[in-house]
Amino acid sequence: MTDLIMMGKEAKKAAFVLSQMSENVKNQSLMAIANQLEKQTDAILAANQKDVQNAKQQGLSEALIDRLLLTPERLKAIADDVRHVVSLPDPVGKIIDGGQLNSGLRIKRVRVPLGVVATIYESRPNVTIDVASLCLKTGNAIILRGGKETRYSNEILVKVIQQALVEAGLPQYAVQAVTDPDRNLVMQLLKLDRYVDMLIPRGGAVLHELCKQHSTIPVIVGGIGVCHTFVEQSADLERSINVIVNAKAQRPSTCNTLETLLVQESIASQFLPKLALELSEKGVKFHADSTSFSILQKMDVEVYALQESCLYREWGSLDLNVVVVKDFEQAIAHINKYGTQHSEAILTSSQQLARQFVAQVEAAAVYINASTRFTDGGQFGLGAEVAVSTQKLHARGPMGLEALTSYKWICEGDYLSRL
Amino acid sequence: MTDLIMMGKEAKKAAFVLSQMSENVKNQSLMAIANQLEKQTDAILAANQKDVQNAKQQGLSEALIDRLLLTPERLKAIADDVRHVVSLPDPVGKIIDGGQLNSGLRIKRVRVPLGVVATIYESRPNVTIDVASLCLKTGNAIILRGGKETRYSNEILVKVIQQALVEAGLPQYAVQAVTDPDRNLVMQLLKLDRYVDMLIPRGGAVLHELCKQHSTIPVIVGGIGVCHTFVEQSADLERSINVIVNAKAQRPSTCNTLETLLVQESIASQFLPKLALELSEKGVKFHADSTSFSILQKMDVEVYALQESCLYREWGSLDLNVVVVKDFEQAIAHINKYGTQHSEAILTSSQQLARQFVAQVEAAAVYINASTRFTDGGQFGLGAEVAVSTQKLHARGPMGLEALTSYKWICEGDYLSRL
Repeated sequence: MTDLIMMGKEAKKAAFVLSQMSENVKNQSLMAIANQLEKQTDAILAANQKDVQNAKQQGLSEALIDRLLLTPERLKAIADDVRHVVSLPDPVGKIIDGGQLNSGLRIKRVRVPLGVVATIYESRPNVTIDVASLCLKTGNAIILRGGKETRYSNEILVKVIQQALVEAGLPQYAVQAVTDPDRNLVMQLLKLDRYVDMLIPRGGAVLHELCKQHSTIPVIVGGIGVCHTFVEQSADLERSINVIVNAKAQRPSTCNTLETLLVQESIASQFLPKLALELSEKGVKFHADSTSFSILQKMDVEVYALQESCLYREWGSLDLNVVVVKDFEQAIAHINKYGTQHSEAILTSSQQLARQFVAQVEAAAVYINASTRFTDGGQFGLGAEVAVSTQKLHARGPMGLEALTSYKWICEGDYLSRL
Repeated sequence: MTDLIMMGKEAKKAAFVLSQMSENVKNQSLMAIANQLEKQTDAILAANQKDVQNAKQQGLSEALIDRLLLTPERLKAIADDVRHVVSLPDPVGKIIDGGQLNSGLRIKRVRVPLGVVATIYESRPNVTIDVASLCLKTGNAIILRGGKETRYSNEILVKVIQQALVEAGLPQYAVQAVTDPDRNLVMQLLKLDRYVDMLIPRGGAVLHELCKQHSTIPVIVGGIGVCHTFVEQSADLERSINVIVNAKAQRPSTCNTLETLLVQESIASQFLPKLALELSEKGVKFHADSTSFSILQKMDVEVYALQESCLYREWGSLDLNVVVVKDFEQAIAHINKYGTQHSEAILTSSQQLARQFVAQVEAAAVYINASTRFTDGGQFGLGAEVAVSTQKLHARGPMGLEALTSYKWICEGDYLSRL
């Protein structure tokens, strides 16, 4: 039987040990994990096949099955990702600021690990390794809760990690997984604030809402992207097309994908036909408001009348909402009403409107003349990404290693009292 | 009737306007508030007297009544505090980092206001002005929920602030208060995550626990300080006495006050008698474990046998727990078990043990040879303090203006697509 209190205690003990470890020791454990993943390929793939067979029996979609499938190549890539984490600089120990105060107190603010991180995620077994390696690099212990579809894969992956940890002289329970599919365990995990410092849900809106409603652990809400691109009338229309095609069609399942295109009325009839043909070639279907519908229905493209509910949807597919707005203010109002504070873009030649857009749009990432697809820890130069936050506390946007740290004030005196 | 949804909507609208305001405009509104507080002294003191009379009728303690009492001098000091906030640098708009990426994307991370802040606090009317001015300085709207003892004071203070805001051309509802004493309103406020970005409880452990359990808004937990000082055997005992007296007796009601003194066994019988006399002169009463009890009972001091429950208590008074520990490891274990991650100190001559203490103690502020009384935004050079966080997310320790901000990634390209 899974005992979450016990897991919490073990995680806290492990975090205490990890927080004292040098970057070198932490890197050695990561190398050991990468090597073990490759060495134990056969066993890992066999366990993964059990998950794949179960998924097939349960009639899961091809897309879902593909997400949980491991192959020798994919496992090699995962191991290489761990080696990449070794190469990243460790933020722990970095001095943020400090100095000597008038009182004589010498003070510095130093980065420390958060402690224990928990994550609840869906069917991609690579997340198991990904999150574990980023947490270990920053000296955090981690409690993983993957989807039940990946139960056997996660069991063996965590076993392999734990073997590598012991081999490297680190505590076995620095990485633990709750693989028992009992759903009550999720509710128990959400209340584990005594042992867990941060909870990162990685999944759909329902999971995030569940965590927000019930967690007593601080939650990083994020990952839901209803992203917009506003084509303002002064934009270079020719060059806008590529940016929009990229934002919508490059990888439609991602959270930084464009879901609703806003086009200024004055250029709609000129711009939309050409754009629609290019998007249609990529397989895009349109959900058009009345003005754009009247333009698009004359074209040889798949177009539906827009329902308001679509404006709240993260399609995750080649569906695109199209809305014609009268002016800049209407575009801003639309984005701040329907957006999820993820990634929002304006295409414009006006520097003044670009500045205004940046100031008025509430979002983690705001783009001027670029595709929203750039919102990503790797693209932003963070080296890695543990999640994308769409809230404003602690971390906003792509979260790299620094988001897995806190800080401590270290104060030194010569037997100093406060006046 | 108080309509919190409506208040949330108004706060969000006001936050949108505030986020666009220059530092200059925000400062003007603060100056207007300071001036109005002085101009309307008579009306404010009259309303405050209603609270004071009610408190007396209800038999509240002298200490509590003193906390809620406003005098012309106190009001002048509060107005001057607002003028001090004007003089602080505004973190909004500050570029944290950035540069041009290989993709060609120019990226920068810029500080922005959090949006809407809510705070729930107890009977000090100065907090109303304090928090409001710090939030306005950083472009945040605020919803205040003070204690029912300060209802009339808070009503007029917020009215005065709102008049000053309108005078300065800022939205009236940038500062709002929930003064209706109905306790259901607190539970409603805790669920206002759609409009409120951060909740700061300022009060006792019960309030913090209530917020942690029920809030769907991210909460800053803090303010509870069960602080320790460990006298390691190599410490300069003569000079240790002043530090301990300062930590315990300077202002015992504060959260950075020493509550449990840990003394290493090898020096206990030499050190404790002298220390006890000095502390006793300040009125300190001792709750001593068996070893220290046998030492202290021979002295002319007030000493009680320590109950374990005392070790979890934030006394807020001149009571002091005394525990004799065998060694360094026992001291660390004690602090990490009973501490509240607020402020912890070691007195020692060993640099190696000092380093180990800093690394192994879990706390917002860790002191080497200094009094825990220094944990304070002003003392730490932050210019102001909105609260003291004892959690690890977003902000830890004294929270200054920066803790009232988030950031936004601003990305610019030349019609750039992701490869």
